[in-house]
Amino acid sequence: MTFKSQAVTLHPIGRVEREEGGRGLSPENLSARPARILLDPSLTDGLMGLETGSDIVVLYHLHLSTGYELHVHPRGDPDRPLRGVFATRSPRRPNPIGMTTARIRRIEGNVLEVVGLDALDGSPVLDVKPHSSFFDSPYTG
Amino acid sequence: MTFKSQAVTLHPIGRVEREEGGRGLSPENLSARPARILLDPSLTDGLMGLETGSDIVVLYHLHLSTGYELHVHPRGDPDRPLRGVFATRSPRRPNPIGMTTARIRRIEGNVLEVVGLDALDGSPVLDVKPHSSFFDSPYTG
Repeated sequence: MTFKSQAVTLHPIGRVEREEGGRGLSPENLSARPARILLDPSLTDGLMGLETGSDIVVLYHLHLSTGYELHVHPRGDPDRPLRGVFATRSPRRPNPIGMTTARIRRIEGNVLEVVGLDALDGSPVLDVKPHSSFFDSPYTG
Repeated sequence: MTFKSQAVTLHPIGRVEREEGGRGLSPENLSARPARILLDPSLTDGLMGLETGSDIVVLYHLHLSTGYELHVHPRGDPDRPLRGVFATRSPRRPNPIGMTTARIRRIEGNVLEVVGLDALDGSPVLDVKPHSSFFDSPYTG
């Protein structure tokens, strides 16, 4: 099986801006601080139907992440037992895509003001989707 | 702003296999049928800590999706009012990444048997993350 030969190329649709850079803050602390998503202005029409209070899933490139190991200490804490990288939310992973559900506080043109987003300043945004209890909650069949 | 110039290249970590191809089934019907994720065998150690019953978020390439429009009829139903693509889960989007929370029924080596996954047969898998109520539920901060 040579999955790795079929590369997938994505083009960011925007980027995250926030006052503090964000490095060194826990995901909880970073999420609590407001951030902005600046969408490529040519894509602004794609926001129709989103509004203040909408819950969105933001996919973004963990652009400062470098390399990965298959076994990691959760949160980089050596006191936590090693786990497989796919059993953690470590930013250092084979495909460094971050994913967080955030809430829209305000939309102005191509700019989304959000809270609940743990992406660092400058993170390239790959997708915005509406949060869906069907797709995004544990499957109950 | 020229976000589009900074491409992000990802390498699939595995692929989805299922008995039926899946085209033409609704996401609900497709999710209800079991599927397998075949992980690249070199990454198997990254599964440590996942087990039967674990809820995972699967990111995958919507590999049969071609192009997009900024305004879409949800579920392709012309009776539903147009919405912005970022306010829908349409597979036809600027970066065709699918995302679903699935449940592990069984793990054997590099193969995850799951239910709740709406990916078509052959979909390249980009990431597997543990579902997290903090990151993946509506933000209540």
